[in-house]
Amino acid sequence: MIKAAIVGYGNIGRAALEALSAAQDFSVCGVVRRSGSGEGCPELNGLPVVQNIEELPEKPEVALICTPTRSVLETAEGILKMGICTVDSFDIHTQIPQMHAALGQLARQGGSVAILSAGWDPGSDSVVRTLLEACAPKGLTFTNFGPGMSMGHSVAIRAIEGVADALSVTIPAGAGLHKRMCYVQLKKGADPAKIERQILEDDYFAHDETHIQFVPDVSAVRDMGHGVHIERKGVSGSTHSQRFSFDMQINNPALTAQIMVSAARAALRQTPGCYTLIELPPIDLLPGERAEHIARLV
Amino acid sequence: MIKAAIVGYGNIGRAALEALSAAQDFSVCGVVRRSGSGEGCPELNGLPVVQNIEELPEKPEVALICTPTRSVLETAEGILKMGICTVDSFDIHTQIPQMHAALGQLARQGGSVAILSAGWDPGSDSVVRTLLEACAPKGLTFTNFGPGMSMGHSVAIRAIEGVADALSVTIPAGAGLHKRMCYVQLKKGADPAKIERQILEDDYFAHDETHIQFVPDVSAVRDMGHGVHIERKGVSGSTHSQRFSFDMQINNPALTAQIMVSAARAALRQTPGCYTLIELPPIDLLPGERAEHIARLV
Repeated sequence: MIKAAIVGYGNIGRAALEALSAAQDFSVCGVVRRSGSGEGCPELNGLPVVQNIEELPEKPEVALICTPTRSVLETAEGILKMGICTVDSFDIHTQIPQMHAALGQLARQGGSVAILSAGWDPGSDSVVRTLLEACAPKGLTFTNFGPGMSMGHSVAIRAIEGVADALSVTIPAGAGLHKRMCYVQLKKGADPAKIERQILEDDYFAHDETHIQFVPDVSAVRDMGHGVHIERKGVSGSTHSQRFSFDMQINNPALTAQIMVSAARAALRQTPGCYTLIELPPIDLLPGERAEHIARLV
Repeated sequence: MIKAAIVGYGNIGRAALEALSAAQDFSVCGVVRRSGSGEGCPELNGLPVVQNIEELPEKPEVALICTPTRSVLETAEGILKMGICTVDSFDIHTQIPQMHAALGQLARQGGSVAILSAGWDPGSDSVVRTLLEACAPKGLTFTNFGPGMSMGHSVAIRAIEGVADALSVTIPAGAGLHKRMCYVQLKKGADPAKIERQILEDDYFAHDETHIQFVPDVSAVRDMGHGVHIERKGVSGSTHSQRFSFDMQINNPALTAQIMVSAARAALRQTPGCYTLIELPPIDLLPGERAEHIARLV
């Protein structure tokens, strides 16, 4: 049994507990969260809930970092130094190289392994993109997201004064382009025209076709479903027009957490350092016997 | 530059030469074929063509085994013992475990690496199936092939007395089931009813819905296109109905050979032994800088 801890207990942390509980090869050492208490969460009954990972009665082998993306590095630092592996779903694409370098150094210092960006995009989608380049080295890959909620865009609208709640839904427009459908709930007395202007001028929205709709209750239109359509048309050898596509329609936190749990297995099978999913043998993500996977899946 | 040889020069061997020529990081040491001559193949002008790999003027680092599937082991044996890596597209799914063991032993003895079953199925499809199990551990995966020519089924019909030529096309029937559409060209005086009976009783066809059509000229209906539709519906954590699909429409020998060439790169990056594609980090399949791939693809 692999001893795992969950660090951070929002949507992803909750889904991580479900994925760890469903797996046969993990035991949960406990949950680390700011409050240090499992109050109001009946599913945490009987589990150690602490403020600091050192307080867990049993030292985990791997920690699933389920805190917000921007605090992943800070959270992982102390854990990797303790010789505990980490898995995160860090999702700011442009910052992955510097995170890779920073986590790699920390992991090697601690003799541990950090799995970086082990969600679905970045994550499993990255594996598909890499595989398709190996299949058809020349050509274009388009990653089309949605329909589904974009957390980053929703948060950007919520930060605007006068907004009570907001939801930004990503709609694929083809060729890797996207429309943004924004559902905005106003605070009393807020000026819709002014807020609309502020959204359209925000860098998150300025480059995409954006539509804004004011609704009385955002919670009535929010759901956790998401999807992707990856397409590549390219050249294998000297043969053109090789066509590939990958599609999924999924519950976002459930898939993210499941991939993190699968990556936690792989963490224990690598030498110290930092790895993204494209750097891991896919077989390392699965529980059970390698020989059985080779016979059944190859 | 990676020094590569092509062993066997049929459809796959020809496509392998195209893929090696299109790659920036390979040089072709030559072609090994029974005839030992490049006569009638203008694309082989200027390349060493020999009967035995030892006769090549320059020792390759990796050999692409493009001989028929049943002779892969025999062909690979001598090459691996010379310390040359091998890549094959061995495609008899049920015999992969024993091939893995045999090639693994030979490779370790020779201090070399054998990449086994590096085509599209087994091969890139195997990577997709493995990834989808990591995304949704419980559930069903269906691999639906076609429409496209099945080499094995076509050869089985051609072996029947009275058959001049034959083509068996695989048509997906959903849920991993398939129909077989057989296009048969008879020899003069052959009895179509008898041949139809023999096809339907053959173990290759007895388990699938099979349709037989007699045609005057099989070459007029043959094409190298093929396809696959892989679908998985499963459970991530405790969330059901997560849906995934992977589709491709491709030229069969071109894709097979391209994947073999990509796998040849990975061969040089592993420790001695045998590997299927699910045992390789996908990044190892690509040319160029790892840091660049991580920044661009993750």
